[in-house]
Amino acid sequence: MLAELRGLNEECGVFGIWGHPNPAAMSYYGLHALQHRGQEGAGIIVTDGTRLRAVKGEGLVNDVFNNGKLEKLEGHAAVGHVRYATSGGSGIENVQPLLFNSTTGGLAIAHNGNIVNATRLKRNLEQQGSIFQTTSDTEVLAHLLKKSNLASFEDRAKQALRLLDGAFAVVIMTEHAMYVAQDPQGMRPLSLGMLDGAYVVASETSAFDLIGAELVRSIDPGELLIINDEGCRSERYVEKKDRAICTMEYVYFSRPDSDIDGINIHMARKRLGKQLAKELTIDADVVTGVPDSSISAAIGFSEATGIPYELGLIKNRYVGRTFIQPSQDLRERGVKMKLSPVRQVVKGKRVVMVDDSIVRGTTSRRIVKMLKDAGATEVHVVISSPPLKNPCFYGIDISSDSELIAANNTIDEMRELIGADSLTFLSVEGMVEAIGRSDVEKNCGHCLACFTGEYPTSIYADTKLPHEKELVR
Amino acid sequence: MLAELRGLNEECGVFGIWGHPNPAAMSYYGLHALQHRGQEGAGIIVTDGTRLRAVKGEGLVNDVFNNGKLEKLEGHAAVGHVRYATSGGSGIENVQPLLFNSTTGGLAIAHNGNIVNATRLKRNLEQQGSIFQTTSDTEVLAHLLKKSNLASFEDRAKQALRLLDGAFAVVIMTEHAMYVAQDPQGMRPLSLGMLDGAYVVASETSAFDLIGAELVRSIDPGELLIINDEGCRSERYVEKKDRAICTMEYVYFSRPDSDIDGINIHMARKRLGKQLAKELTIDADVVTGVPDSSISAAIGFSEATGIPYELGLIKNRYVGRTFIQPSQDLRERGVKMKLSPVRQVVKGKRVVMVDDSIVRGTTSRRIVKMLKDAGATEVHVVISSPPLKNPCFYGIDISSDSELIAANNTIDEMRELIGADSLTFLSVEGMVEAIGRSDVEKNCGHCLACFTGEYPTSIYADTKLPHEKELVR
Amino acid sequence: MLAELRGLNEECGVFGIWGHPNPAAMSYYGLHALQHRGQEGAGIIVTDGTRLRAVKGEGLVNDVFNNGKLEKLEGHAAVGHVRYATSGGSGIENVQPLLFNSTTGGLAIAHNGNIVNATRLKRNLEQQGSIFQTTSDTEVLAHLLKKSNLASFEDRAKQALRLLDGAFAVVIMTEHAMYVAQDPQGMRPLSLGMLDGAYVVASETSAFDLIGAELVRSIDPGELLIINDEGCRSERYVEKKDRAICTMEYVYFSRPDSDIDGINIHMARKRLGKQLAKELTIDADVVTGVPDSSISAAIGFSEATGIPYELGLIKNRYVGRTFIQPSQDLRERGVKMKLSPVRQVVKGKRVVMVDDSIVRGTTSRRIVKMLKDAGATEVHVVISSPPLKNPCFYGIDISSDSELIAANNTIDEMRELIGADSLTFLSVEGMVEAIGRSDVEKNCGHCLACFTGEYPTSIYADTKLPHEKELVR
Amino acid sequence: MLAELRGLNEECGVFGIWGHPNPAAMSYYGLHALQHRGQEGAGIIVTDGTRLRAVKGEGLVNDVFNNGKLEKLEGHAAVGHVRYATSGGSGIENVQPLLFNSTTGGLAIAHNGNIVNATRLKRNLEQQGSIFQTTSDTEVLAHLLKKSNLASFEDRAKQALRLLDGAFAVVIMTEHAMYVAQDPQGMRPLSLGMLDGAYVVASETSAFDLIGAELVRSIDPGELLIINDEGCRSERYVEKKDRAICTMEYVYFSRPDSDIDGINIHMARKRLGKQLAKELTIDADVVTGVPDSSISAAIGFSEATGIPYELGLIKNRYVGRTFIQPSQDLRERGVKMKLSPVRQVVKGKRVVMVDDSIVRGTTSRRIVKMLKDAGATEVHVVISSPPLKNPCFYGIDISSDSELIAANNTIDEMRELIGADSLTFLSVEGMVEAIGRSDVEKNCGHCLACFTGEYPTSIYADTKLPHEKELVR
Repeated sequence: MLAELRGLNEECGVFGIWGHPNPAAMSYYGLHALQHRGQEGAGIIVTDGTRLRAVKGEGLVNDVFNNGKLEKLEGHAAVGHVRYATSGGSGIENVQPLLFNSTTGGLAIAHNGNIVNATRLKRNLEQQGSIFQTTSDTEVLAHLLKKSNLASFEDRAKQALRLLDGAFAVVIMTEHAMYVAQDPQGMRPLSLGMLDGAYVVASETSAFDLIGAELVRSIDPGELLIINDEGCRSERYVEKKDRAICTMEYVYFSRPDSDIDGINIHMARKRLGKQLAKELTIDADVVTGVPDSSISAAIGFSEATGIPYELGLIKNRYVGRTFIQPSQDLRERGVKMKLSPVRQVVKGKRVVMVDDSIVRGTTSRRIVKMLKDAGATEVHVVISSPPLKNPCFYGIDISSDSELIAANNTIDEMRELIGADSLTFLSVEGMVEAIGRSDVEKNCGHCLACFTGEYPTSIYADTKLPHEKELVR
Repeated sequence: MLAELRGLNEECGVFGIWGHPNPAAMSYYGLHALQHRGQEGAGIIVTDGTRLRAVKGEGLVNDVFNNGKLEKLEGHAAVGHVRYATSGGSGIENVQPLLFNSTTGGLAIAHNGNIVNATRLKRNLEQQGSIFQTTSDTEVLAHLLKKSNLASFEDRAKQALRLLDGAFAVVIMTEHAMYVAQDPQGMRPLSLGMLDGAYVVASETSAFDLIGAELVRSIDPGELLIINDEGCRSERYVEKKDRAICTMEYVYFSRPDSDIDGINIHMARKRLGKQLAKELTIDADVVTGVPDSSISAAIGFSEATGIPYELGLIKNRYVGRTFIQPSQDLRERGVKMKLSPVRQVVKGKRVVMVDDSIVRGTTSRRIVKMLKDAGATEVHVVISSPPLKNPCFYGIDISSDSELIAANNTIDEMRELIGADSLTFLSVEGMVEAIGRSDVEKNCGHCLACFTGEYPTSIYADTKLPHEKELVR
Repeated sequence: MLAELRGLNEECGVFGIWGHPNPAAMSYYGLHALQHRGQEGAGIIVTDGTRLRAVKGEGLVNDVFNNGKLEKLEGHAAVGHVRYATSGGSGIENVQPLLFNSTTGGLAIAHNGNIVNATRLKRNLEQQGSIFQTTSDTEVLAHLLKKSNLASFEDRAKQALRLLDGAFAVVIMTEHAMYVAQDPQGMRPLSLGMLDGAYVVASETSAFDLIGAELVRSIDPGELLIINDEGCRSERYVEKKDRAICTMEYVYFSRPDSDIDGINIHMARKRLGKQLAKELTIDADVVTGVPDSSISAAIGFSEATGIPYELGLIKNRYVGRTFIQPSQDLRERGVKMKLSPVRQVVKGKRVVMVDDSIVRGTTSRRIVKMLKDAGATEVHVVISSPPLKNPCFYGIDISSDSELIAANNTIDEMRELIGADSLTFLSVEGMVEAIGRSDVEKNCGHCLACFTGEYPTSIYADTKLPHEKELVR
Repeated sequence: MLAELRGLNEECGVFGIWGHPNPAAMSYYGLHALQHRGQEGAGIIVTDGTRLRAVKGEGLVNDVFNNGKLEKLEGHAAVGHVRYATSGGSGIENVQPLLFNSTTGGLAIAHNGNIVNATRLKRNLEQQGSIFQTTSDTEVLAHLLKKSNLASFEDRAKQALRLLDGAFAVVIMTEHAMYVAQDPQGMRPLSLGMLDGAYVVASETSAFDLIGAELVRSIDPGELLIINDEGCRSERYVEKKDRAICTMEYVYFSRPDSDIDGINIHMARKRLGKQLAKELTIDADVVTGVPDSSISAAIGFSEATGIPYELGLIKNRYVGRTFIQPSQDLRERGVKMKLSPVRQVVKGKRVVMVDDSIVRGTTSRRIVKMLKDAGATEVHVVISSPPLKNPCFYGIDISSDSELIAANNTIDEMRELIGADSLTFLSVEGMVEAIGRSDVEKNCGHCLACFTGEYPTSIYADTKLPHEKELVR
C-alpha cells in the first residue's frame, strides 16, 4: 500500500479571493508568497459571475503568467494554486486549480494535502462509469460533487467532503460562490483574511502580508466556509475534533514570516534552537545553519550557547530547475551544487552544524564532508526535530520508511553514516514545548505521526468511512 | 560627460580556464558562482586549438546553456562571462565574451570594469576606418589589438593595454593562448587558481570553491599573465603602482564566501558590523539585516551589542526578472515586492535595521515604512559604510551624483527623508580598519572615490595618456 | 438548432497502424499526407501492449513532433489525427486522438466527422454524473463505452456506435486492440491498407502512398473492424444501408492523389471540368484554375474546349497561419494575400476562371476583381459543382445557410455580386455522372445534401434513435 | 579555389522602399513574394530619418516577424532581405540586411549575388586593421565604404562598387538615402516600381504585384540609383556593358508571375516546353511536370504535342524545414518525402516527365523510380534547359563541377543512371530563342556560363581589377 501512494503525495499552496476588482493580480502576488510550497506548476481561475476562465502552466508563477496572460483573467473572484514537483503525477493536466465545465456550469478546485482513500473512491466511481481526466487525488472530489443528487451545492459539498479521508485544505469555486474547507483534523494550514472588504484565504499568512491583507483567523478543522456576494458564512460538515496540525510546517516547511494559529514560524524555530541548547552540551567554535530553513534554529542555538553564529555554508541561489547537474565524477572532484562552504569561516574550527531534519542522510553526509574538506576539525550535527521514523500520508513527500535513515538505524549508526563527530536530535517533548502551541488559546494538538507513528486518521485506502454509503457504494 | 558614461557602466564577472578536458562545463559551474555579478547575459567561448566556438545569450547562465548547448563546446580551454543589466547597452551583440573572427584566427575577450577613455578611442579608430559591432567599451581593446603592427600577440596586448584608462580585469583568448590582465590600479578583483593541473582565473574565489579549484593568488595591478600549453608566465605592461581595490566589493558586491587578497568577505562584513557597534550607542530590542548582503554586518552588530539578531525582513526569492511589477496604486495599498516584514518579530519593538549602503534612499524609506507599518515602535538605520557622495567611473552603476541622496543632503536631512528614528553611517577610517587590508602582507590600498571623491585615475574621456601616440593618433 | 451546432463541425484526418515496429514514425509520415484535412492540431498515441502514450499539440504535424518527441513513442501500434481549425472548439484539450486513462486501462479515440446527436447524449450523460473534459462531440463515444455494462469491449463498442447519429470514421485503440468503424452511411472516406504485414487505416489513400502501403479496400458503411495481434476481423454493428459518401470529398476536399472507392480524385475532377465544357459554350482566350483544388478541373476544361490553360493565378505559398493580415485599408490599396494574378497572362484576355465551389462569394468577388485589375477584359466564372444551398451537419464547416450565397440569390444575382461576366455551375446530374461512381462495382450512393437538401440521416439533435434505450435514458 | 567559394554562394531576395508611411509592413508583404528565393533568414531595417532600426532572424518571414515585432519598425523607408540556406555561412550574424552603426550614423546593406573577389578584398582589409563581423561576402562592401576618404557618400559608393567583381544586386540605406546598384553585367534581376508616390525596388516583380505597386523598369547594368526625399536619380559607376542576366532565373528560379525585362516567367517556361516539343518526337500517353517549377513547361509541351497533361506527381506541401527525414531504410521501403506519384494517373501509361534541370541526378533517379513503382510502363525524361556542366560563381548554389552529373557523363550514361527510357535536353539555341529576350527592345544578353563555361567576369579571386589601386592596396 505504501508503494501505491508514492507519487500521489504532494505539498502545495492554495489561495482564494472573493469580492475584489482585480482578483487575478492579487492571486498572482499571493502565489509568490506560497511559491516555496510548490514549483512544478501554477494556476489561477477567475469568475466574473457568468463563467470561469483559467490560466495554468508548468513551472514557476513568474513563468506561467508571462506575456499578458494575467490581464485576460477579468472577474471579481479567483482561486489559485502552486504545485509541488512529484515524479509520478506530473503533466499539465494535473496542474491545479482543476477546472470542470459542464452544460450546467463550471467548477474549480484547488487542494493542498492528500486524500488517503482517493484510489478506492476513484475505482468505485469508475465502475459507475466516471471517466477521470487526471491522476490527481483531487479529481475524486469533483466527481463526488457531480454524482450527488442533493439540491443545493452546499449540501453536496458537505456530503462529498464527509467521504474524504486524509488531509485537505481545499478551495472550491463556482460562478456564484467559493467554498473553503479544512479536513476534520485541520492538518494543513489554511487561514482567512480580509483585504479592502474582500475575503482572502491562503495556505500561509505570508501571502496576506505580501498583498497587504489582514489576518482574521485560521480555518477550523471540519469547517466549511461559504463565501459569496452576500458575505462569508461558517458551517461545519463534521463534528468538531481535536486539531492535528502538521508539525513539519513549523519545523521546516512554512516561510519564517508566516504564522500558524498565532505562532510565528521564525520565532518557533529560534525557540527550537534554544531548546536544543538546553538538551545538549557541546564545546565548539562556530555555529552555522544549513540554509535557508535552519538559519532561525542556528541563531537561537548560538544565542543560547554564546558560540558565535557564522555563515559557514552559502546557498548557490542560481542553481535552478534547469541547472545541468555535474556528473558523479565531477561531483567527486569537488564540484558543488546547492551549497558551498565558506573556507575561512570553518578552517581549523570545531563547527556546530544545525539542520532541521534528516530524511535519507545523504545530504547531511555530503555537507559534513564539505565542511571537513574545507578544514573544519570537528563537525557536530544538531537537528531541531526528533528522528523521522515513519512515512507521511497527508501530503508531505516522505512516503516510504525504507528511505528513512532513522527508521533503520540507531543514532550512533546514523552519526557514523553521515561522518559527524556527534549527532543530536531534539526530543519530541522539547519540540512540542518549544513550538509553544500550549500557549495558544485554541486547541493545541500536533500531528506527530512521522516521529511517533501515531496517525490521526485511518491510513489504509480500503477502510470504509461511516458516511460512505451516502454516495459511493 | 557624466551623462555620456551612463549606461556604459557595468558590473560583471569573468572566468577562464586553460588545460582542462571539459573547460565548458567548468566555466558553466564557475559562472554560477559569479551569477550575482550580472544577470543580463552569459557566454562561454572555447578553443580546441584550431578554432573558437561560442555560445552566448541573454538571461541567466541556466537559461543560456539549456538544451545541450554546452555539449557542443569541446576543447581544452574556455573563457566565460556574466553581464550586468544596464539600460543602454543591452542587446545580444553586447553579451560577452566578445568574439572576433578573421582570416588569421579568432579572438575572444571577457571584461569586467569600465574603460574611461573608450569613447575617445572609438571615435579615433572609426576615423581610421574601423567598424564597431557593439556599443560596449570592451570592443575598443579588440580594435587596438588588430591595429597594432607589432609582431607578437604578447607585445600587441601590452601596447593595447597601455592605451586603456580605467578599471579592467580582462581575459583575452586566441586559439593558442590566454592573456589575463589587471588594470594598473588593480581596481576589480581577479584571482588565479589551479584545478587538476589546469589554470583557472575568476573574478571571485567563490568560483574556485564551487568547482573545487585551489586559490593561488590575486592578479597584480598592471600584470599580464600569458597562459598556454607550456604553462603560465607573468609579465608586466606598466610599472608597478599602488593597488586601489574597489571598497564596495567588500561592502556589498562580492559573495560572502569569496576572499579578496586573503580577506574573507563575510568576516570583513561582520567586522564592519562590530565596528559600527563601537562607533555608536543605541538602545533597541532587535537587530535585523536587509537581506542578503547586510546579514553578516547585522550579525556582527548583534554579537557586539548583545541585542538579539532576528529575521525581521524576508526576501521574496521568487520575484525574478519576469515578475509583473505591482502598479503604484497596488504598492500603496500594501503589495510588497522584494521584501516582506516579519510582523511578529518587529511588532512593538525598537528595531535596528542594518544595511550596507544608501544610494537614492528610496529603498531605505520603503523598508523603514514597512517595518513601522508592521508595528515597530522605533527604527534605527545603521549603515556599514560611509555616505556615498560621488559617482563611480570604474564599472559600478552609480554614475550621476544627482541621484545620490548623500551628495545633496546632511545626515539629518537623510534621516528625515527615509523616516528613520536615527541614522548612522560608518566612518571611512572605521571601515578601512575593519576590512583589515592593513593586515594583509601585500599592498593594502583601497579605491575610496565614491566616499571621498579622490579618484585613482583620470576620469575625463579626453585626457590623453602618455603612451597614446603609440597606436591611436 | 443550427447555431448550436456551429463550432462543433470539423473536417479532420485519422490514421491507424497495428503490428509495425515503428508505428509512431509511420503515423507521422501518414499524417503529413492528411495535413490538408486539418492544421489546427495533431496527435499520435501509441501502445506497447501495456500502456498508451500520447504526444499531442496545437499546430502542424511538423511543429507538434519536433525535438525528439516522436522517439518517445515506442510500441507496435498507433492511432493519429489531424484537426481542422474551427472557431469554437479550439484548445489543446480538444486535440485528438483523445486519451482516457482509468484504473482498468487506457482508451484512445480519433474521429473524423460530426455526431449530430452529441449535445443531447452529453446532457443526458452529465445528468447521470459524467464529467466531460472537452467540448468535442467525440468524447461522447468514450463515455458511452465506459457506461456500458456489457462484458466484452467489442460488444460495448457496437452498443455505443449504434447510439451515434451522423457521420463518423473512427479509430478506437486500447492497449490490446484497434477498433475501426464507419458510420451507417459511410459518409466520410476511410480505407484499409497493408504495410509489411501491418494493418493500416487512413482517411485518404494518399497516406498509404506516402508510406508505401498497399490499399486493400474502403471500410464499409456500418462496418466495425477489430484489429489485434491475431489479425483483422470484420463485423457489423448495424444492418447494411446504402452508402452516402460526401460528394465534396471528390469536388474539393481530398488530395488529387487519393482514391475513394477506386476513383482517383484528380481524374474525377478533370472529368468534372470536361463535363462543364459539355454543359456550356464559351468564347475565351485562356483558362485558369483557382489553386490548388481547381487546377484539375481547369485542365479538363481546357483539354475539352481547346482554350489554352495558363497559370493566371499564383498561390502565395508562404502565407501561413502566423501571417499578419493586411488591414482593410491596405487590402483596398492592392495588397494581396493568398493569391496573386499573373498580369502578362491575363492582360487584354478573356479569361475563364474555374473554381470548385462558391460558399459566401466573397473570395470569388475578390479574385474576379483581381483578374480585372490585372487587365482581363472578361472574366467567366465556371464552377465544377452545383450551387451550395444547404448547411452540412456531417463535419464540413458550412453550418448556416444564411452564409451561403446560393441559398439566397439567383445565379444571375450571384454573377452580379461577384462581378463576373458570366457564371455557370455544373448540374447535379452532370456532377454525379462525371465523378463516375456508377462505374464502381460497389454501391454508388452520394450524399448530395448540401446541393439538394436531402439529408441521409436525421439532422435534429433531439430525434431519439431506436436503440437509445439501451444505454442512454 | 572552387572549394573556397563553397558556402559563400547564396541566392537571395532584396526589397527596398522609400517615402511610404508604413515601409516595414510593405517590406513584410513584399518579402513574402520573394520567400522562395531564400528561407534561412529574413530581416527588415527601417529609417525614420534619425536612426536605423532592425528586426532580423533565422527562418521564414512569418516566423521572424511574429509577436508584434513589425510594429516596432516605424519610419518612412525600409530595406528587406530573405536569405538562402547555405551550409557554411549560417548564423544569425549573417542574416541580412547587415547593419553597421558608428558614431557618425548607420548603414544597412541587402545583397543578392556573390562577390567573386570578396576573399581577397577581405584579407587585404584585415591587414589594414579591419575587423569583420560576419562570414558574408557582403560585409566587404561596408568596409570599403567606411575606408574611403571621399567626401560624399555617393562618391564613396561608386568607388566601392567599382572594386567589386561578380554578381550583385544591392540596396544600401543610410538615415538619409537609399542607394540601389546593379553589377556591371546586370546578372541578378532587380526592378524599380512606384507605390502611391513611394519608390520600390525588388528582386522580382511579383513583390510589386503583391503590394499593388506599378513596375517602372529594370535597373540597368552598372547603374546606381540614389533615392531620397527629393526623388530618384540615376547615375552610373562604370561604363555601360552588355547585360548577362542569369538564364536560370527564367528556367527555374523566379516565380511564374514575375517578369524580367518585360518577359513573364510562366510564359517563357511554357515556350521552353513548346520548344522541347519541336526538338524531339516522342510517343507517350501522359505528360506530367515535376512541381512546382516545371509545371509551366509541361503544360507547354502538352499543348504542343497534344499528349494530355496530368497531375502525375503531387508535392507534399507540409514537408517543411523541421520535417523529420525518413531513415535510409524507411526510404527504401517506400516512404516518400517531397513528392508522391498519382498511381491511377501513371499506372500502365507511358509517361513524359518534364523537369527544368538535372544537377546531381539523384532526385531525377528517385522520381523515375517512383513513377515506375507506381506502374508507369515507360518514363521519358524531358529537360527544359541544356545540360548543367559548369559551376556558378554568381550566387547560385552549384559550386563544384564534381557534383554535376552532366559534367562527367554523356547523355546516354545519364539516362542509364537515372533509369529513364529516354532523356532529352533542350538545346542552348532553342532555350535562348524560346525565352525570347531578342524580342525585348533593350540588350538581350544571357549569362550561359553554367551551360557553356563562358563566364562574363573574371572568376578568380586573385585577379586584380583595374580600379583596385584606388582604395585597396
